[in-house]
Amino acid sequence: MTARDFTGLFEPRSVAILGASNDETKYGNWISVQALGMLGRRELHLVNRRGVSVRGRPPVRSLEEIGEPVDLVVITVPASGFEEAVEDSLAAGARAIVGVTAGFAELGAEGRAIQDRIVRRVRDAGAVLVGPNCLGVVDAASGLTLASNPMPEGELALFSQSGNMALELSGFLQQNGHGFSRFVSLGNQADVTAAELIDACIEHEATRAIAVYCEDFGDGRAFTEAASRAVEAGKPVILMTVGGSEASMRGAQSHTGALTSDTAVIDAACRAAGVVRVHTPRELADAAKVLLRYGVGNVVRRVAVIADGGGHGGIASDTCERFGLSVPEFSAALSERVAALLPPSAGTANPIDIAGAGEQDNPSFARVLHECLASGEVDAVLLTGYFGGYASYGEGLAAEELQTAARMAELTAEYGRPVLVHTMAHTSPAAALLEERGVPVCSAIEDAVRALAALDRARRAPTPTGGVTLPEVPLVSDDYWREREMLADIGIPFAPAMRVSDGAEARAAADRIGYPVVLKALGLLHKSDAGGVALGITDAEELDAALSRMERELAPPGFVVERMVDASGSVELILGVQRDPRFGSVVMVGAGGVLTEVLGDVAFELAPVDPEQGETLLRSLRTAKMLGDFRGRAGVDVASAAELLAKISAFAAANLRIREIEINPLLVSAAGAIALDARVILDPETSEK
Amino acid sequence: MTARDFTGLFEPRSVAILGASNDETKYGNWISVQALGMLGRRELHLVNRRGVSVRGRPPVRSLEEIGEPVDLVVITVPASGFEEAVEDSLAAGARAIVGVTAGFAELGAEGRAIQDRIVRRVRDAGAVLVGPNCLGVVDAASGLTLASNPMPEGELALFSQSGNMALELSGFLQQNGHGFSRFVSLGNQADVTAAELIDACIEHEATRAIAVYCEDFGDGRAFTEAASRAVEAGKPVILMTVGGSEASMRGAQSHTGALTSDTAVIDAACRAAGVVRVHTPRELADAAKVLLRYGVGNVVRRVAVIADGGGHGGIASDTCERFGLSVPEFSAALSERVAALLPPSAGTANPIDIAGAGEQDNPSFARVLHECLASGEVDAVLLTGYFGGYASYGEGLAAEELQTAARMAELTAEYGRPVLVHTMAHTSPAAALLEERGVPVCSAIEDAVRALAALDRARRAPTPTGGVTLPEVPLVSDDYWREREMLADIGIPFAPAMRVSDGAEARAAADRIGYPVVLKALGLLHKSDAGGVALGITDAEELDAALSRMERELAPPGFVVERMVDASGSVELILGVQRDPRFGSVVMVGAGGVLTEVLGDVAFELAPVDPEQGETLLRSLRTAKMLGDFRGRAGVDVASAAELLAKISAFAAANLRIREIEINPLLVSAAGAIALDARVILDPETSEK
Repeated sequence: MTARDFTGLFEPRSVAILGASNDETKYGNWISVQALGMLGRRELHLVNRRGVSVRGRPPVRSLEEIGEPVDLVVITVPASGFEEAVEDSLAAGARAIVGVTAGFAELGAEGRAIQDRIVRRVRDAGAVLVGPNCLGVVDAASGLTLASNPMPEGELALFSQSGNMALELSGFLQQNGHGFSRFVSLGNQADVTAAELIDACIEHEATRAIAVYCEDFGDGRAFTEAASRAVEAGKPVILMTVGGSEASMRGAQSHTGALTSDTAVIDAACRAAGVVRVHTPRELADAAKVLLRYGVGNVVRRVAVIADGGGHGGIASDTCERFGLSVPEFSAALSERVAALLPPSAGTANPIDIAGAGEQDNPSFARVLHECLASGEVDAVLLTGYFGGYASYGEGLAAEELQTAARMAELTAEYGRPVLVHTMAHTSPAAALLEERGVPVCSAIEDAVRALAALDRARRAPTPTGGVTLPEVPLVSDDYWREREMLADIGIPFAPAMRVSDGAEARAAADRIGYPVVLKALGLLHKSDAGGVALGITDAEELDAALSRMERELAPPGFVVERMVDASGSVELILGVQRDPRFGSVVMVGAGGVLTEVLGDVAFELAPVDPEQGETLLRSLRTAKMLGDFRGRAGVDVASAAELLAKISAFAAANLRIREIEINPLLVSAAGAIALDARVILDPETSEK
Repeated sequence: MTARDFTGLFEPRSVAILGASNDETKYGNWISVQALGMLGRRELHLVNRRGVSVRGRPPVRSLEEIGEPVDLVVITVPASGFEEAVEDSLAAGARAIVGVTAGFAELGAEGRAIQDRIVRRVRDAGAVLVGPNCLGVVDAASGLTLASNPMPEGELALFSQSGNMALELSGFLQQNGHGFSRFVSLGNQADVTAAELIDACIEHEATRAIAVYCEDFGDGRAFTEAASRAVEAGKPVILMTVGGSEASMRGAQSHTGALTSDTAVIDAACRAAGVVRVHTPRELADAAKVLLRYGVGNVVRRVAVIADGGGHGGIASDTCERFGLSVPEFSAALSERVAALLPPSAGTANPIDIAGAGEQDNPSFARVLHECLASGEVDAVLLTGYFGGYASYGEGLAAEELQTAARMAELTAEYGRPVLVHTMAHTSPAAALLEERGVPVCSAIEDAVRALAALDRARRAPTPTGGVTLPEVPLVSDDYWREREMLADIGIPFAPAMRVSDGAEARAAADRIGYPVVLKALGLLHKSDAGGVALGITDAEELDAALSRMERELAPPGFVVERMVDASGSVELILGVQRDPRFGSVVMVGAGGVLTEVLGDVAFELAPVDPEQGETLLRSLRTAKMLGDFRGRAGVDVASAAELLAKISAFAAANLRIREIEINPLLVSAAGAIALDARVILDPETSEK
């Protein structure tokens, strides 16, 4: 779909509200009240079919009665009248429809059918439909105020599936002097989606950052791609969503019928797009505040902590580490330069404790900041403690403190590295001056540190370079032997093996392959658990016994005899590709074999990945230590495992019938990688295309 | 030490400040200014040796000049004059001395020697010394205001090693309408410790909860025991400390020379005592607010979430799970009862989404709360969203909302289960009414959930029942064979083994024990890494080869030949006892063998532990899944491993020379546990007693 025209939604010349009302318990009243603020800026028609004058406006019974085209129609009538209202709107020339009407989700399949029919009509007419079940639209620059409450004006565009969440966010943003450039309540996203709205904000000058609250991503890839484009264009994207707990998934499914994705998959999607994921409204507001100031693309790992007191230095350092940031020890040279600026009892190795210099020599805050920024040893600086509070010691110090604050703001601008301030004196004049000159101030240390960490995430992952060319391989049905052949064809190495039907063939195969061998029964999804795998068979007698037992117990359609691979000096991994209902193909890596289930140590990335991304993913595992030099064993060949991951991810991307590939275990040693078992699950043939 | 008398510190009849000053950059001025507030309540002498009148008070040159006894002396003179000032104070009859004077830590060993001498003098005189390097003492009930700033009055006692941290806490507590019953700046804790001050608050009526910020615990066991007594007496204890990151430990060691404990050991100590550990000042204030309301001993695991909107329900549920609380699905019966109270589109299975009932039928908030409290299906209830905001819809709804709030407070009192409210309308009249009637209200969901989780931690762990009686065993030196014998004597099972000196003895031993065997070289701390362990030796030839190689490469003083134990169906664990510099003996359990290093999956508990605690600890491991039925293998005998842990913990507790015991791996199967390797590290004999 090419980009659609949203001027009818955000900059309509005329607006009509269908279902406008004087009843103060109704949405048709609340939105009309807010809409009155647009008078003088655009035509406004409050349509009530009983011909009542709403809020003193001229009574209008229908869109037809208006007698001229209306750009934007807000529909608040009951569900039973919604379809007709949409038809009337299109007939009246509407380019955008805001469907406040709710009740479609409750109708189940029938509701979806009605929605789909309406959406087709709207699209055929070249219009856009927001909702239904939407709570309004606001555009600060165009003065559009079609929501139930006034919204603070600012530079953040918010697209939200919850009205109350938008209200709560308003509160937190206002505390920081921020607000919304645009607000769209997403509702059911039957037509217009969050992804389209993100795209519509990339060129929107008044919008400098974008926030999304949603429970259902719809087409997750479209969301990720739109977000990538926004981040690429320098506009940070912040996402708040639910689904981290069984309870929230239960809730989401019950009230919107949403398909939910694994929270680790959502994380992977955010990482790929450079989207900053947050968990609560306050986190969202704090992230917005800092991202609006410092934008996208900042690498923030190493933080200098400047504190006026050992306690604040320690608490800030611990908090940085809890949020994944490091507070590295300064070089001796830097530590000496810092020491030269401070009293003898100061801490100078990072965290810096200025040890009383706040009272005695206030400008040393700025001098120490200067050393940190100029050093190149840190990516960002966090000032924590009492700054701003020194004013209470007297007028002289108050004036000096303001000068220090001004100097710190200058240095921050000059060096272009993020500087954040946490202070208990967050309502002081010095704190206000810092904020005003572009140094964000937080009232709690955890808010400051979380926001710093958020800065680091607002960076797009490098686009995979590709580089894996796969042969054309026929897709075959669910049978270990055929799946193995299919994967071998695309370059996954397996141990030598043969498919056999009976004892005689098995013995011949084993002789050819060489003992010890493994015998596997075919036709079972969980071979190991069912007793369909016999390891370490050293002679024909053992082979016969194992095969007879399996024939008796499992009656399989056949067997595979495989060379038993020596696992010493190796690590077992699991590699996989899965299909997420919202984000499509994702790759998964993890500790393999028995550990897969015990540790749940897995990591996800959107597919496809190139070998380099695969290696990064593998090294992000909690058990990554096993991959390096370990207990006298040389590090294993992670690159070859990553290469195989790239191959299966490209294979799945090129063949949409592949629902799942899992190689477990993949045995990786210093010499390379070899698959010991694998399975491929395909969709039925008919669903191809 | 029996409990000391702190009335001279907290309720002195007379106070003198040595080093009182009119210089507004000096502590001797700031504290004098605050002290003036005590006039009329007790005698106050502002002593300045140059005979200056400070703040208009009568000039006093010395304590002697006062001519009558002084209960409490605050000393703010330079370090060089501190010892003399202490002598003068004791001569003047001081029962308590507050040492503001700093600079002893900077003098290193010399400073410590001076401090020790002073402390002996103070104790001999039956007095108490706070600090030095202390920033003041406050007691609200007795009107004692000896700090640099005014402190808000309330029910929390705070003992802090950082003055700025106390200031920041004041701010957060005041926002919640709370404050301090007592405040003591701990300084160097040369004499009076946090532990003693905790004890001094157990009987203090005005104190209803106790908070400690410290960087150095001193005697950690004394701290833990005092905290346990306080919790036992119904007074919650909250701890904030540093040491979670390398940077903060670097900071703490540089500025106080503090000995720091592993943060996991501190967690174990808190768990044992029922101390609530927090990470930041805001967390401390939120925990205090909720603990002051609901006290100690609450079990809070299962939470009912009541939201007015699916978004808030989802975010609250996810947040609960992130903080370790569950939002369990309601029984069908409860869900039906809830559904009967709400509109058809409501979520009723937990989280509850009241779906518009806030406007349409406000009292349903209270009715739904009632069902949750009465159900017995949850331990606590969290209301989240917009409550209090309905007042903005009109006067009728505003009045109704206040009634709903009052009813919710009644129900909370009636059922005695914790109820917390998060609302964006936290400044509304309904929110104020809730707070006033004992239902805490938070302005951010994460603050509410974190505080709920804190409630659950304010419970003492059951005291170990003991139950392990150990034989008298001689402690022997660092040699695997002797250590093995020592552990075998207290009942740790090992595989059959013999100590041998050469090949002939080794072959005889192996014949007797039976092949396969393991050969271990003695005299090496890290046998495996050095090549001093040969596994799976199946005959005399292999045994000879391994022994010759070890003799050649390692020249050990001897060998041990051990039966090789079949590891199939078993799990490898590590069990240990270590000595922490602050908290003394702690037990450690973890995934054993190779996994110890890779996973770092370990858990600590203060020693000694009984078998029941040991089992709980083992089952708290991340890899605990391995201990249960797993991949067709029966669950292993965790109880027998726990029994062995209890044995080594009791052994270490009874023998203070034991610095460390480590059994790794301990092989545990369904049939029991057997140690495959172990070591014991002892202090040199001289240090005993």
